[in-house]
Amino acid sequence: MAGQRPACPHHLLPISLGLFQGVLLLFFALFVTYDEPSAQAEDTDSVANQLYGIFPFFQDIQVMLVVGLGLLLTFLPRYGLSAVTHNFLLLNFSTQWALVLQGLLHHLHNGQVHLDLHNLLTSEFAAVTVLISVGAILGRTSPCQLLVVAACEVPIYLASEWAILTHLGVLDVGGTITIHVFSCYFGLGVSKALFGAARQPVHPNETPTPHSDFLSLLGTLILWVFWPSFVAILCQPGDAQHRAILNTLLAMSASAVTTVVASSLLERDGKLSPGHLQNGSLAGGVVIGAVADMAMPPVAALALGSLSAVACVLGFRFLTPLLARKLTLQDQCGIHNLHGLPGILGAVASAVAILVTSKDASGSRFSQVSPVGGNASEVGGGRWGDHGAGEQALYQVAGLAVAVGSSLLAGLLTGVALRLPCLARPPKWLCFDDSLYFKIQDQAESPGPGGTAEEGALVLRERV
Amino acid sequence: MAGQRPACPHHLLPISLGLFQGVLLLFFALFVTYDEPSAQAEDTDSVANQLYGIFPFFQDIQVMLVVGLGLLLTFLPRYGLSAVTHNFLLLNFSTQWALVLQGLLHHLHNGQVHLDLHNLLTSEFAAVTVLISVGAILGRTSPCQLLVVAACEVPIYLASEWAILTHLGVLDVGGTITIHVFSCYFGLGVSKALFGAARQPVHPNETPTPHSDFLSLLGTLILWVFWPSFVAILCQPGDAQHRAILNTLLAMSASAVTTVVASSLLERDGKLSPGHLQNGSLAGGVVIGAVADMAMPPVAALALGSLSAVACVLGFRFLTPLLARKLTLQDQCGIHNLHGLPGILGAVASAVAILVTSKDASGSRFSQVSPVGGNASEVGGGRWGDHGAGEQALYQVAGLAVAVGSSLLAGLLTGVALRLPCLARPPKWLCFDDSLYFKIQDQAESPGPGGTAEEGALVLRERV
Amino acid sequence: MAGQRPACPHHLLPISLGLFQGVLLLFFALFVTYDEPSAQAEDTDSVANQLYGIFPFFQDIQVMLVVGLGLLLTFLPRYGLSAVTHNFLLLNFSTQWALVLQGLLHHLHNGQVHLDLHNLLTSEFAAVTVLISVGAILGRTSPCQLLVVAACEVPIYLASEWAILTHLGVLDVGGTITIHVFSCYFGLGVSKALFGAARQPVHPNETPTPHSDFLSLLGTLILWVFWPSFVAILCQPGDAQHRAILNTLLAMSASAVTTVVASSLLERDGKLSPGHLQNGSLAGGVVIGAVADMAMPPVAALALGSLSAVACVLGFRFLTPLLARKLTLQDQCGIHNLHGLPGILGAVASAVAILVTSKDASGSRFSQVSPVGGNASEVGGGRWGDHGAGEQALYQVAGLAVAVGSSLLAGLLTGVALRLPCLARPPKWLCFDDSLYFKIQDQAESPGPGGTAEEGALVLRERV
Repeated sequence: MAGQRPACPHHLLPISLGLFQGVLLLFFALFVTYDEPSAQAEDTDSVANQLYGIFPFFQDIQVMLVVGLGLLLTFLPRYGLSAVTHNFLLLNFSTQWALVLQGLLHHLHNGQVHLDLHNLLTSEFAAVTVLISVGAILGRTSPCQLLVVAACEVPIYLASEWAILTHLGVLDVGGTITIHVFSCYFGLGVSKALFGAARQPVHPNETPTPHSDFLSLLGTLILWVFWPSFVAILCQPGDAQHRAILNTLLAMSASAVTTVVASSLLERDGKLSPGHLQNGSLAGGVVIGAVADMAMPPVAALALGSLSAVACVLGFRFLTPLLARKLTLQDQCGIHNLHGLPGILGAVASAVAILVTSKDASGSRFSQVSPVGGNASEVGGGRWGDHGAGEQALYQVAGLAVAVGSSLLAGLLTGVALRLPCLARPPKWLCFDDSLYFKIQDQAESPGPGGTAEEGALVLRERV
Repeated sequence: MAGQRPACPHHLLPISLGLFQGVLLLFFALFVTYDEPSAQAEDTDSVANQLYGIFPFFQDIQVMLVVGLGLLLTFLPRYGLSAVTHNFLLLNFSTQWALVLQGLLHHLHNGQVHLDLHNLLTSEFAAVTVLISVGAILGRTSPCQLLVVAACEVPIYLASEWAILTHLGVLDVGGTITIHVFSCYFGLGVSKALFGAARQPVHPNETPTPHSDFLSLLGTLILWVFWPSFVAILCQPGDAQHRAILNTLLAMSASAVTTVVASSLLERDGKLSPGHLQNGSLAGGVVIGAVADMAMPPVAALALGSLSAVACVLGFRFLTPLLARKLTLQDQCGIHNLHGLPGILGAVASAVAILVTSKDASGSRFSQVSPVGGNASEVGGGRWGDHGAGEQALYQVAGLAVAVGSSLLAGLLTGVALRLPCLARPPKWLCFDDSLYFKIQDQAESPGPGGTAEEGALVLRERV
Repeated sequence: MAGQRPACPHHLLPISLGLFQGVLLLFFALFVTYDEPSAQAEDTDSVANQLYGIFPFFQDIQVMLVVGLGLLLTFLPRYGLSAVTHNFLLLNFSTQWALVLQGLLHHLHNGQVHLDLHNLLTSEFAAVTVLISVGAILGRTSPCQLLVVAACEVPIYLASEWAILTHLGVLDVGGTITIHVFSCYFGLGVSKALFGAARQPVHPNETPTPHSDFLSLLGTLILWVFWPSFVAILCQPGDAQHRAILNTLLAMSASAVTTVVASSLLERDGKLSPGHLQNGSLAGGVVIGAVADMAMPPVAALALGSLSAVACVLGFRFLTPLLARKLTLQDQCGIHNLHGLPGILGAVASAVAILVTSKDASGSRFSQVSPVGGNASEVGGGRWGDHGAGEQALYQVAGLAVAVGSSLLAGLLTGVALRLPCLARPPKWLCFDDSLYFKIQDQAESPGPGGTAEEGALVLRERV
């Protein structure tokens, strides 16, 4: 089996990763420090309270990214270890890389970068885009290729986020446009450029088993539970944050129920497709991000949740096969259905919500929309004061266009880079297979008396 | 295989669910709004702090219901996807349904329902009763039937909760009487009326495998960890909440250890039964709900935890088989052992605790008992001031009687409704089988070279 | 099969556990009470805020110990139920036992022990040492033997913790020395004394399958996510706690990436070993405990995380086989690599950090190091004021020596006690087998038509 491994050097991954860790250490040694300690007792109390406010949200997001998203990717039955591990490695690498870049770009005043939980969080958001994008090429790529995606995507994301939130003043507290739409089209661009016009045959390991579908559904449930923290963590504390949590809960509840409706109606015998359930239930979380803290009525959150679930399920049923046929576009996890379509829907909804709430709003409501949290608040809030609701709605659409355009272009270029032979793209017959990356009992060898049942059965199967 | 599906229309489920979503949207559009924004900066701080106080508890409960309870139900080895999905769907449907009903019943002043996290939480508590009740009929019922259970149980629960907490002023901060006892006897009523006197044969898919037992135990552990949040979320902040958390921790620790003792003593060779462990470890959380915030000594929490675990294990060993033989009562998950017996024990304990703590109490202790949290606090606290400890103890027992009586009666009626043929009760030979509800690789077809080991082995087995 | 069970009485476990529960009840009835209620409204607010500050951290730690650590131990493919259950039982037993001992030793003023969440937490920390130690003898020991380990280890731990933190004034907010180093050498001592010079043959059930490796990795990820709460919960609120969280996050991120580098470099074909990943990713959390809240620059946390991961992976690759060959030392989970080596590294780092930060520190920095949280703060802070940085560094090393010495000695003695035949050590051919402790479908019997696929396959295998 060892002879079938690709010919490229096995140590490219550890050596490049090791070098990166060295550079990171150097950068931190030279430039990064902690905030000056707050000297007075009163400050200490306020620091503690601020920490107690944000830390539970932060932990929820960590669970989502490490455990929930990892499990969601395990629907490939013999690729579970790799899916979870690559997700974990990419999260850490991308966060560190974003810390370095953010430090260099934004915070280099006084020569020192002051690290706090908020920096770490925004770096983690940059990492999220990588984790989403690689869903399009899951299982057909090597860890080296994934690291190249991360290395390219993080700086593009930071630039695009700056353009959308700071320069255009787009309101997007939950990352619908900046994170979900951006990462989706980046991933599709990479996939198109990497696989080109070659139609990928269906690999036997691609078909989920009931058990792998179950694990993936478990990941969905974990993401579903903690999603409100993801949307609300950067909101302004108080009413806006409370409303963002409620809107997210409503949207996700509606999309869970609507997914069952849509998936069941699409099949002749009324059965559910596990894939629809795994993705559609989360569509409400994607769509709600751009409008979660706005002063819209609760029914809007429910309606958006339902609509996004319908869009997601229809996407899986009709659009993904169509794109695969017409554009030979490979989208392994269906990120276009979970992040692309609901993301666009959410961006459009944010423009509509701004127009509608500004019209029917008395002063008090109107003021509720503008002070959104996060980076946008400093600029966005002020800007809108200047340019009015109509203009702000236009900026929302412009933000969507910037996200789609920049990500598609950058993704295509990154995908071309992934074709470098030294990046050890796995051969087709070894795709979706943990044994390529892990020292595990080889499932094709005889298990002997020490082998396990599962392996024994595999041998039986493979010899038939 | 498709030909063996029941003859009733496949689209009843999605159509009725879809209609319900439409009605929900209409209701929200007409009646539901968010709280008025708090205008002043000082208020904002207090809103934020309130949110930071309750939100981590709320998230813990979400994990319990979506992930923990879902996993607990996966002890049926080929019904994992369905168990988790139906649990998830019922939670969302019942919460939405309870929101509508609560809005109509309680909050219709000024024509507007003001939605906040507290409303959502009490609606979720209503949904919990449904999730518990359907444990009695797990695997032998269609999703349509489960939705009918939810549609019937939620309004009855709201009425019974109002009667017990508000009208009688029963103290039950953790839902021992209002949630656990009520849902248990509702579920048993449904089961009795649905299956009648027909003895259900043991289905081959009913026997847990080590792996399905493991997943179910994982669910137990998740529930065990987060249970203190479930009991304490509605307590009065401060000492009462602190005490509720400690009492729950003590009770659950005692029931974990005692379950091992009891289960091991009951078997001749001292082995543990996974089913005992999965349920007995949680009995302490059920029993402690009614007394968690009372001023009783810590030893009482330990003793109640131990006692409830013994009752639960004895119930599984002796009572469930007895009820199945004498009353042909089907209780698939053993909800009577986990929720019924410990719930009754907890209700009685609350009456005793009120009598005892009022006798040996100086003023300071006595006052600690009365200000319990939740809905009860407003009325219960005041009432008790009027009617004294003896009377309050009587009210606790009366509350238990109301919960048992109303739930049994309503459950029986609901069970009769479930016999409607259009609800697509699964045929006996397709019970406990995911393939009836999910588009998964059919386990009876030849897996071919793309099939998985597990399926290959299944084929072998089914052909023997 | 029943005839092959060891000859000792089956009921030793439940009877001794039951007696212990009785003693616990008696002790609580006589001596334990809750804190006096805080009478004034202002106090209530402060109690509530204190609870909201600590409770999310506490819940995170509960998830780590019950779910995360339990899953981490499931790498033995047919021992999952036992590993998780024994972990759960030991946690509860040891916590209760530590509560009793702590009550007797420390808090017996006025004849009453005042129970609060902080007591429970420190008791749980005592239990953690037991859970780590038994990793060395996982699968080759009976539950009776494990309980004896817990009974012996908890008092020794309490004494050693007192000596190290209170008497010597060692700074160790995250338990690097008092918990990790102590429990590691205790466990190794037990293993050495129990198994003696007899080389344990490799059992067929010892080899992980891809699925059991996956479950174990899931446990790693859960531990990885929540580790910052474990390190920071006893820190002083405010800057120190914030810094402890950031340092832990940095260290764990670095060790995750470095583990991939080290594991991949050590194998000729560049594959990853799941065992390295499961343990190395957590090494950063072990190493950072003693220095997490000190005023060192962020780069130190990154460097320590990387170094500890390298030490852990090298330990698995070279040291564990060496110790097994030269000393016939059995270390089933590799606790020496995860807790021993990184723990020693962390202890040395704390001495160095104290020396370095005291030199280059202006007043403000220096003052940041001393007020550490936990038990140490009361004594340690003051002491250091007296004896200067050099002396404090010496005390750190002395603390390390005390931890290693006392734990090794006590572990060896405990291990001798475990050889008592009445403790029902499992026979070699039944090691690592759930069916010895659980009433599960016996995997060697014919499954018949009701058996599951997995079992069918097992039969096939065992008959080959």
